Amino acid sequence: MPDRRIVTFTTDFGLSDPFVGIMHGVVLRIHPETAIVDVCHAVASYDVFDGAWTIAQAYRFFPPRTVHVVVVDPGVGSQRRPIIVETDDYIFVAPDNGVLSMIEARETKFAVRHVTAERYFLQPMSQTFHGRDVFAAVAGWLSKGVAPSEFGPAISDYVRLPLPQVERIGQNSLRGAVLKVDKFGNLITNISELDAPALFGRNVPALSILIAGQTITRVCRSYADAQDDEMLAIVGSSGYLEIAARQASAAQKLAAGVGTPVGIVITA
Amino acid sequence: MPDRRIVTFTTDFGLSDPFVGIMHGVVLRIHPETAIVDVCHAVASYDVFDGAWTIAQAYRFFPPRTVHVVVVDPGVGSQRRPIIVETDDYIFVAPDNGVLSMIEARETKFAVRHVTAERYFLQPMSQTFHGRDVFAAVAGWLSKGVAPSEFGPAISDYVRLPLPQVERIGQNSLRGAVLKVDKFGNLITNISELDAPALFGRNVPALSILIAGQTITRVCRSYADAQDDEMLAIVGSSGYLEIAARQASAAQKLAAGVGTPVGIVITA
Amino acid sequence: MPDRRIVTFTTDFGLSDPFVGIMHGVVLRIHPETAIVDVCHAVASYDVFDGAWTIAQAYRFFPPRTVHVVVVDPGVGSQRRPIIVETDDYIFVAPDNGVLSMIEARETKFAVRHVTAERYFLQPMSQTFHGRDVFAAVAGWLSKGVAPSEFGPAISDYVRLPLPQVERIGQNSLRGAVLKVDKFGNLITNISELDAPALFGRNVPALSILIAGQTITRVCRSYADAQDDEMLAIVGSSGYLEIAARQASAAQKLAAGVGTPVGIVITA
Repeated sequence: MPDRRIVTFTTDFGLSDPFVGIMHGVVLRIHPETAIVDVCHAVASYDVFDGAWTIAQAYRFFPPRTVHVVVVDPGVGSQRRPIIVETDDYIFVAPDNGVLSMIEARETKFAVRHVTAERYFLQPMSQTFHGRDVFAAVAGWLSKGVAPSEFGPAISDYVRLPLPQVERIGQNSLRGAVLKVDKFGNLITNISELDAPALFGRNVPALSILIAGQTITRVCRSYADAQDDEMLAIVGSSGYLEIAARQASAAQKLAAGVGTPVGIVITA
Repeated sequence: MPDRRIVTFTTDFGLSDPFVGIMHGVVLRIHPETAIVDVCHAVASYDVFDGAWTIAQAYRFFPPRTVHVVVVDPGVGSQRRPIIVETDDYIFVAPDNGVLSMIEARETKFAVRHVTAERYFLQPMSQTFHGRDVFAAVAGWLSKGVAPSEFGPAISDYVRLPLPQVERIGQNSLRGAVLKVDKFGNLITNISELDAPALFGRNVPALSILIAGQTITRVCRSYADAQDDEMLAIVGSSGYLEIAARQASAAQKLAAGVGTPVGIVITA
Repeated sequence: MPDRRIVTFTTDFGLSDPFVGIMHGVVLRIHPETAIVDVCHAVASYDVFDGAWTIAQAYRFFPPRTVHVVVVDPGVGSQRRPIIVETDDYIFVAPDNGVLSMIEARETKFAVRHVTAERYFLQPMSQTFHGRDVFAAVAGWLSKGVAPSEFGPAISDYVRLPLPQVERIGQNSLRGAVLKVDKFGNLITNISELDAPALFGRNVPALSILIAGQTITRVCRSYADAQDDEMLAIVGSSGYLEIAARQASAAQKLAAGVGTPVGIVITA
């Protein structure tokens, strides 16, 4: 089975309704051999940026040729376009609202098509559930081997989402922000190795990390490295600096969340 | 792999316990090649009607010959019978408590068997988890190719659940109710094209939709069609009229929920 | 496909982040043919005992040769070892923190290896997500057929978790505790047939079960057996005595939870 294809789903649909199961059904009805993986269905409702962040953390851990479907789609039923994007290793299916912008920022190849071939959609098509009628159906046909070029023309005027940038303030200081709070209450910032290489190496210089009125003065190697009541900074699994607490929620302890500013001053 | 079989699960078990994973294990232990899909495990606890609604939205999107297991089973361990139902395209496994009544309402063929062949059950059989010991096990054997007739005799005295009907009040007016609130707070009614064909076409007549003290006067083509603060009516993805709000919860805005009456008066 | 291998996951990661989907990706990238099952991701955060309980309820319902991955890992990034455990029928992958202790209590063979072969880990390895970089990766290679002996040396000084014991108090009386509250509010105790064979047979003697200030005087055959407002005792699906209420939450009614003592006095 060298050609076994994988389809993943990332949505804001939650698991309290049959939406997700129905999308699996649509794919399997088109191609029963496809393996389906749920990346995450807990994207914040209508939050395109949260969807962009979620798929960007996950997509590269899947086999080449995986089809990633991302449906955070406040414009469902309007004129917003469905798109297919090809990168070197993956194919993405999504509404054209910027939800793939963090993929574009990481990939060399990012070839976008407007999906116009309605023969691949479920009929009759609903006005409110394109996850089922458009995106899952297109993913099913892609996983069955239909070429992206069959679905519609290449476009270059697709929507790009402005991504929160890290600001440099003077030579040794920068300001970022919390992008995401995970299930454990860890605060994931937008500060990566590109912004502050010194923080990500073996010998971290003396520094102050400022968040929500508190100052953290070292980067730990592991959660277990910290004292019980200490707030800690650590390089997270996505390559971003995280603010955490040992076996506790940093978000709760600091009353911090998405958007909370994070300052870093390298003092030596 | 032309014969790859699919088993789906719809239950009120939630995902906070290993119940669902265990049922997957039981199926795979009997037939490791089966593909398993979770339709939904968030059916309201013990709520047979909610289970009936959930599987009715989902079943027809799966490949023919899919085995759909539905376990909302307040009578587990009592004398209520396990049943297998065959329709033209699908096989269902469920307790005999009416949870398949909305399938019966939609299908021409609805052939019911009482599952009496205990050799297909897990032994020792528990008193409290027939989802594992009876329903998943029977689904496993069905997916392996055992014929429904092997499991027990045809019956006709199975339980039928009374389904909420739309009331016609005079020539241009009818009264339905909210059947379901989805994750986004959309209020899904029981009013379908059969009840009010005029609402589901291209040229919707002048009308008033009355719910929770508010009046809505048009049916939108998409959520994006509505103003930011407007309550809107829209044909939902299951073919029922829905009351929604743009990027907000109609349920919260109207303090409405399952059972809330919905009146429609066609004024022109 | 006689060799189709199954990998299961049991974690405290929840489903609000892409953690679980990413681990599926890691396995499939190594071996796309593997079937993956989520046993449960709602283990209480950092609660090694709750993880031990969860996998112990589930593992034996899967096909022989299934690879069970259990990641409840408060020590991630520290010196705690990753281990592989072989029992007669299954292979387990977990951190060495006692999370497999309830498996050891049930199995004859329990052969433990320290996973030292870093060539099977994802590189670069993060400090915070060994579920992805170590445990899922090792499970992927195991499911592809790499022998456990390839991953590292046998050890005998692995961590054992003290398990809550049932105390015998006099000849006809014993004291246990609630181990788990399930989604329906059923209180699952640690009292099994081994502790009190009389309770698990057909003819249960006269007895008093004392919990949270209430006395229950019979063991029911099914939930439906009880009166509407009656608290009931029943043999649960895992073989432990459970305290339940008919279509209601015993945990709420009794304000009881994990750790609540349960006394049993056999009076005849």
